[in-house]
Amino acid sequence: MRFCLTMKSSGVGLCVLALGMCQIIIARKVLDCNVTGEWRNELGSRLLLTSVGPEVRGVYRTAVESVRGAAGPNREAKVIGVISDGPQPTIAFSVLWAKGSCASWVGQCFTLPGGDQVLNTLWMLRSAVSSSMNDWDGTRLGDDRFVFLRGAESP
Amino acid sequence: MRFCLTMKSSGVGLCVLALGMCQIIIARKVLDCNVTGEWRNELGSRLLLTSVGPEVRGVYRTAVESVRGAAGPNREAKVIGVISDGPQPTIAFSVLWAKGSCASWVGQCFTLPGGDQVLNTLWMLRSAVSSSMNDWDGTRLGDDRFVFLRGAESP
Amino acid sequence: MRFCLTMKSSGVGLCVLALGMCQIIIARKVLDCNVTGEWRNELGSRLLLTSVGPEVRGVYRTAVESVRGAAGPNREAKVIGVISDGPQPTIAFSVLWAKGSCASWVGQCFTLPGGDQVLNTLWMLRSAVSSSMNDWDGTRLGDDRFVFLRGAESP
Amino acid sequence: MRFCLTMKSSGVGLCVLALGMCQIIIARKVLDCNVTGEWRNELGSRLLLTSVGPEVRGVYRTAVESVRGAAGPNREAKVIGVISDGPQPTIAFSVLWAKGSCASWVGQCFTLPGGDQVLNTLWMLRSAVSSSMNDWDGTRLGDDRFVFLRGAESP
Repeated sequence: MRFCLTMKSSGVGLCVLALGMCQIIIARKVLDCNVTGEWRNELGSRLLLTSVGPEVRGVYRTAVESVRGAAGPNREAKVIGVISDGPQPTIAFSVLWAKGSCASWVGQCFTLPGGDQVLNTLWMLRSAVSSSMNDWDGTRLGDDRFVFLRGAESP
Repeated sequence: MRFCLTMKSSGVGLCVLALGMCQIIIARKVLDCNVTGEWRNELGSRLLLTSVGPEVRGVYRTAVESVRGAAGPNREAKVIGVISDGPQPTIAFSVLWAKGSCASWVGQCFTLPGGDQVLNTLWMLRSAVSSSMNDWDGTRLGDDRFVFLRGAESP
Repeated sequence: MRFCLTMKSSGVGLCVLALGMCQIIIARKVLDCNVTGEWRNELGSRLLLTSVGPEVRGVYRTAVESVRGAAGPNREAKVIGVISDGPQPTIAFSVLWAKGSCASWVGQCFTLPGGDQVLNTLWMLRSAVSSSMNDWDGTRLGDDRFVFLRGAESP
Repeated sequence: MRFCLTMKSSGVGLCVLALGMCQIIIARKVLDCNVTGEWRNELGSRLLLTSVGPEVRGVYRTAVESVRGAAGPNREAKVIGVISDGPQPTIAFSVLWAKGSCASWVGQCFTLPGGDQVLNTLWMLRSAVSSSMNDWDGTRLGDDRFVFLRGAESP
């Protein structure tokens, strides 16, 4: 705050104003929702995300399966998707499960008043069906609320 | 069927068997749903897809917008997603629109009895909202049925 | 058009105007989407609806089931729901299937340029799961486009 | 337990068995999820339900609106729907809002290990659009988790 310190007595009002602006800028920085790191949903599924420009990559480890084995031996799958910029970005990403089903999530990252980050999403899970006559039966729907566990470690 | 033609009389049974297998292989080939190429939905939106292993890339040009300009000047966006293998693959892909909304589609590719390919999908469109209190208002839902226009040209 | 016929020559302009208004009113009447009657979707399921004020009642006979027998011996269930007023009403209705699953549709009734009525809907089908841990697995999603077959017969 | 108290010494084993059955019946009674009463979701919306056989009736008072005034002056609407029987019933219900939009919820009632009742739902909100060309834009999607506040008072 060198600017403030060099102000004379007549500048006290301006100084306070400048300090206020600094606080706003800092608060804004803190409130930015950064998806890069590890997330966990209410079922215990883990989501590891890295955003690079408008794309996200990562790994999803599910805690649940619609059919035993549907998610493969590690219940893990690669995540690939998109993310908007801005302090509370929207996000959309997909995974392909080992047995041929796939899923997409869409949602938005929010920083709550206490500083915690949440990722509120809705998802669709598509299972393969035998023919277009059975197409109606192929899609499940649900919601996931991820909470942020930790950011990516620095090197 | 050179293999068959060179068979002597004692090989007739085998020859017929081989022909049968060829027919099965040809039929299977025709029925395989190949997403690489250009698709159009009922609203006139265009979807250009290329599958490379378990990933799909492409371009989406929408014919509609929720708010004028939401999809950007060309109404085009990059497509990124996943696809299963098999003759009627499931697919999930996402796009990020110019103004910060994003969308995901999940669905499955079918070859109809007449040979036409269709891609039956359901989608979610996520718009940015100002805070987690307004999160409930951010997601739209719908369905898209894409028909195949043409495959990617050979070089 | 008694009003027009009694007009003298000086009233021709007004008469034409009045005729134009009549046409608009008639056209509007024809375009009103009236849900009372029988509908069929692309899978062959039948929907018989009667609207009474803001409520709809009826019968749904499904052509498909997620599990054999899920929809009961006749695959029929009572329909109960709500409908808005206006020429192209929105509608939301529910059915309970014999084995304890239930479904809701939301949509809107449109009169197409040729005069045909369609009911474009999205639906969710809820199946019972054993505990809240499996809640994520209980909901299917899809779309139905109903076309109007016939109105309710007069007495 | 008059039945047990009147048993002679030779009936001790039977008496214990009967007590065990009573406990099971009591436990089952406690765990039954009974939707009749008042519920509140995470946004503060209230849901007053009464189940009569396979139907539910009630009142929904929303805490949120997509457009100011969309839910009407009291933000209240009549609830009408269906409910399955069994200890953890599935439910589907609809409301019509004052300005012509309507919504449906599907879900299931669970009694948590601690005894609290929750109603986990997904919903679709349908807004009227001007024509079938804009049909794609008419449906919103979300989730609601209701917690039980109190049962209906006895007379």
